[in-house]
Amino acid sequence: MSLKTASRVLNNEPSVSESTRLKVRAAADALGFRRNAVAADLARGGVSRLVGFVTGDIANPFYSDLASGIERELRKHGLQLITASSDEDVDRERELIDALIERRVAALFIAPTADDHSYLRSELADGVPIVFLDRPPGGIDADTVVLDNRAGAAAAARHLVDQGHRRIALAGDLPRLWTFRERREGFVNALRDAGIGDPERYVRDGLHDAETARVAVEELLALDEPPTAILTANNKITQGALRALHPAARGARRDVALVGFDDFELADILQVSVVGYEVSAMGQEAARLAVARIESPGEPAHLRVVPTVLIARGSGEIALAAPLEGVPAVG
Amino acid sequence: MSLKTASRVLNNEPSVSESTRLKVRAAADALGFRRNAVAADLARGGVSRLVGFVTGDIANPFYSDLASGIERELRKHGLQLITASSDEDVDRERELIDALIERRVAALFIAPTADDHSYLRSELADGVPIVFLDRPPGGIDADTVVLDNRAGAAAAARHLVDQGHRRIALAGDLPRLWTFRERREGFVNALRDAGIGDPERYVRDGLHDAETARVAVEELLALDEPPTAILTANNKITQGALRALHPAARGARRDVALVGFDDFELADILQVSVVGYEVSAMGQEAARLAVARIESPGEPAHLRVVPTVLIARGSGEIALAAPLEGVPAVG
Repeated sequence: MSLKTASRVLNNEPSVSESTRLKVRAAADALGFRRNAVAADLARGGVSRLVGFVTGDIANPFYSDLASGIERELRKHGLQLITASSDEDVDRERELIDALIERRVAALFIAPTADDHSYLRSELADGVPIVFLDRPPGGIDADTVVLDNRAGAAAAARHLVDQGHRRIALAGDLPRLWTFRERREGFVNALRDAGIGDPERYVRDGLHDAETARVAVEELLALDEPPTAILTANNKITQGALRALHPAARGARRDVALVGFDDFELADILQVSVVGYEVSAMGQEAARLAVARIESPGEPAHLRVVPTVLIARGSGEIALAAPLEGVPAVG
Repeated sequence: MSLKTASRVLNNEPSVSESTRLKVRAAADALGFRRNAVAADLARGGVSRLVGFVTGDIANPFYSDLASGIERELRKHGLQLITASSDEDVDRERELIDALIERRVAALFIAPTADDHSYLRSELADGVPIVFLDRPPGGIDADTVVLDNRAGAAAAARHLVDQGHRRIALAGDLPRLWTFRERREGFVNALRDAGIGDPERYVRDGLHDAETARVAVEELLALDEPPTAILTANNKITQGALRALHPAARGARRDVALVGFDDFELADILQVSVVGYEVSAMGQEAARLAVARIESPGEPAHLRVVPTVLIARGSGEIALAAPLEGVPAVG
């Protein structure tokens, strides 16, 4: 067997028979031999088959579903995704982006926390494929895939108005987050269009986990004139609201309508109406943009907006002043 | 400013003033300059500050919670986690392990799918820190963190026996998975110890997502002598069982007791009793083993077993032939 054949096997090149491949791998294992990946990458023009994804929070299923969608599409092109979490920390985001670019990833996906990405200008000019997900980049033009946040929030608000509600709350995320600002805008505009005089009366923001959301919803419900319907701005906030509305499934408060932005597992069993969207389609679209840019780096930046859909499951269809029969309202 | 100072800044070394750091970064950005990470890593003895984690399925919250626990601990040591998913494919697992080792990660975490990891023998002999998570390695000794799967499943089975149940089902995962084989063993032994003659009568396996689990549970409940209690072997199977037992929260079937292995979000609201454990503690323990091995590579391999705890929330405390008052049984 020639050295060239062995090299082909160890570089995972095609046109080597299965038995040869196995023999070379066995010999390489026995010798403790490993291909020098860095050298191999450099020989391919310095670009690896690895693609990086800097997510916001690895423990949020939104990001892992997104990663799953990206991954599925990349595999068709022989690319492998590696994911690292900024934990929504601006400095860590930059460190990770730098570390992945320095390692010559074939492409980079970023679900950004920072507002300024102008430090990536020279990479973009060099044609490095960088795609922003969920939130747009700051200070640069780059391929971006976002949700139609305004339309989704507006549709949810109109849906609640259609059930007769006028006192409608928005339980919202941190105001510095672009996605929340968009959702808030859609919500407020829809209420104003419906003739509601003070659309911001029940807007609460700064909620960023289920527990702070639970407390905020309890405070809203304790008002002298409480809201009769609530839009929760993301999956974590919806969970908190459910704990406020639905304490351990006993004595569930069924007189307050609820729509959650983001679908989530078991929302069907809990009958929670949501603003849903194809999260894995979002990831796939981002992966397609990256692959297209690898192939034609000169193109102008593309923006893709993923539509949302209102999924009615019960909680958003509770009409004003008409609690479900036989279910006592608590509180 | 000396070249040495610039180099210190770009290598994130301490003892540089904040204003100097900002100046150097700005100049470097303007010039499109990037540190050569590979060269810097080689200068540190060829090892990077990146740590790899090969997970089974990135979309399963079990793995993302694990990654989150690992990450929190690693950051204390200035290490950054990157995650890649094998999608429970044996060949992809090996490719990823190879790719990460070739890139000289500082340590490697593996939630393995494969049965044979003997190809890692030379790396282990060289002191490369490799920690196996959730399932042990095959064919080698290496640091490992697993759950006490047998004790957890046995405690759940005994708990159901204590409520008077004798016909107890196990809705199980793929039999090739070590975790499931352990859980099955714990379950079967506990029923046998309780004097139940045919403990395997209601054992079903091969379920690997919520939908196949839902169908299997519906089939169990349609038997002439159906089980009166069910242990579901993981979070996905529990979800499927809930869909069979609890269709859209209306006419919920409350005469079948249920305990799920793995806690999950909203289990409190759904009143589902589970076999829980500290998943982030599991990740932290694994990270500690890796850091210890970086510091003293010669040590023998350690095995850490994370305890489980039965969390009673209602569904597992339904006694035999005593459905909750006022809640009609369906089916």
